[in-house]
Amino acid sequence: MSLLVVGSVAFDAIETPLGKVERTLGGAATYFALAASHFTPVRLVGIVGEDFTEQDEAIFRGRKIDLAGLERAPGKSFFWSGRYSQNMNERTTLVTELNVFGSFRPKLPEAYRDSEHVFLGNIDPTLQRSVLKQVRPKPKSVGLDTMNYWINGTPQELRETLKRVHILTINDDETRQLTGEHNLFRAARGVFKMGPKTLIIKRGENGAVMVHEEFIFAVPAFPLEEVHDPTGAGDTFAGGFMGYLASKGRISEQTLRSAMVYGSVLASFTVEQFGVERLAQVTKSEIRARAKQFARITTFKL
Amino acid sequence: MSLLVVGSVAFDAIETPLGKVERTLGGAATYFALAASHFTPVRLVGIVGEDFTEQDEAIFRGRKIDLAGLERAPGKSFFWSGRYSQNMNERTTLVTELNVFGSFRPKLPEAYRDSEHVFLGNIDPTLQRSVLKQVRPKPKSVGLDTMNYWINGTPQELRETLKRVHILTINDDETRQLTGEHNLFRAARGVFKMGPKTLIIKRGENGAVMVHEEFIFAVPAFPLEEVHDPTGAGDTFAGGFMGYLASKGRISEQTLRSAMVYGSVLASFTVEQFGVERLAQVTKSEIRARAKQFARITTFKL
Repeated sequence: MSLLVVGSVAFDAIETPLGKVERTLGGAATYFALAASHFTPVRLVGIVGEDFTEQDEAIFRGRKIDLAGLERAPGKSFFWSGRYSQNMNERTTLVTELNVFGSFRPKLPEAYRDSEHVFLGNIDPTLQRSVLKQVRPKPKSVGLDTMNYWINGTPQELRETLKRVHILTINDDETRQLTGEHNLFRAARGVFKMGPKTLIIKRGENGAVMVHEEFIFAVPAFPLEEVHDPTGAGDTFAGGFMGYLASKGRISEQTLRSAMVYGSVLASFTVEQFGVERLAQVTKSEIRARAKQFARITTFKL
Repeated sequence: MSLLVVGSVAFDAIETPLGKVERTLGGAATYFALAASHFTPVRLVGIVGEDFTEQDEAIFRGRKIDLAGLERAPGKSFFWSGRYSQNMNERTTLVTELNVFGSFRPKLPEAYRDSEHVFLGNIDPTLQRSVLKQVRPKPKSVGLDTMNYWINGTPQELRETLKRVHILTINDDETRQLTGEHNLFRAARGVFKMGPKTLIIKRGENGAVMVHEEFIFAVPAFPLEEVHDPTGAGDTFAGGFMGYLASKGRISEQTLRSAMVYGSVLASFTVEQFGVERLAQVTKSEIRARAKQFARITTFKL
């Protein structure tokens, strides 16, 4: 089933305790699309500048990723630079140059308007809503990511957008800031009132927890002996999650649970190398094998 | 099967964002014994002062907890006072008065010497080893808890003791300090070389991970809407874990996995109220019910 994603396509400079890259293709929509395309065709809505080359585009080619909605504008692409702490749990943003992304007004190609599943990457909530308005009929599922900048800066706009969202994917701190509630399970009830009936709390090396009105599901992070670069892990998770859901076409307790596992599987590949290097190489059989390992890591008999 | 625990029996003053208590029975061996006694008879080795009353003793009574090894000494019992941060993830120790615990030299009653399972609570590694030497024949399983104070302060003594230990239960930071390795799964291999073939990393609200030479198992923390007091959660976990293992009498992949779940179940009760208040009241059917809920929280089909 058709899955539309809107979000950033960017170039990143990344420094972690295990190395650095000066310029690599990144951005939430990039990680999301690469992950989701293993499960379902993806329609990407974003904007890049003149520095986005054939070579960059090649990373998407040969996959089920439609770039008709990737606008090309005069100027430079979004650029982000960051440095991770020794334990990789914290990062400092060194540079953020919005460039063409600063005047991004998402326009859906006609062929995208019937998208059944939509993921609104972390951008201005007003723009997120403008994307939803262009989709007809209403999508079966809408996922949304956001961050402190919008939670604190444009709370009313975000609230308005959240009314139309089914699945919210944020982290612990963002959950607390959005709801003003420290306890995450009480916070989830606050989120339910805002619209989304499914809250996914991303916890990095501690995995992810899904709080649904009817059930709770937790998945650990895949145990890795070497994490090179956490950049894009959350976006990859969202891509694997939404991609799997869209491929099933049906949102049920069972598909939501499995989607959490596949999201975690994809994210575990992303962090193994810098940027999208590993994610862009991963095969279906590697994904299947790691999903089975997840089962072994979490199975018990009482 | 017989399970021996050595560790502190103390009085605690605790302050959390949800309240405070001026003086409540605590100490690692107390939490451990109360939790483990739901599964198997427990033999407690510790020391208390003259301030340990009939009323305090009553908390252990009516359970399968043998107090023949609880020494009574002139003076006051170990006293600890601490305050938790707003998010309860950090705590500040306000007072530590060792009192009679400062001259504790564990002596096992004759009837304890045949203990088949032993848990060495967080005390001086030399004393931990002296307990092991008094058990004949060698126990089937030995668990050990320790902390930064011993890891940094008496590293050689700790290493010597670890040679005789099967299961090490510590937290993320302690794992890193003990092994000098940031990545926890690589750190586990360092631990295996020291002796224990099973490392359990306690992660508080993020659950626990078991790294065994042959497999990895992760369990989330039980989702609670109200945590009143995290004190004793780790000791309760260890008690539920070792108690279940001892009751099965057999250390296998399956019993180790189930033990992780029961440890988490018991810990989830402890943190619901101050001190041992909730733990001392929990029933077998409550434990069974919550263990089943754990299964629901972690189950998925690929």
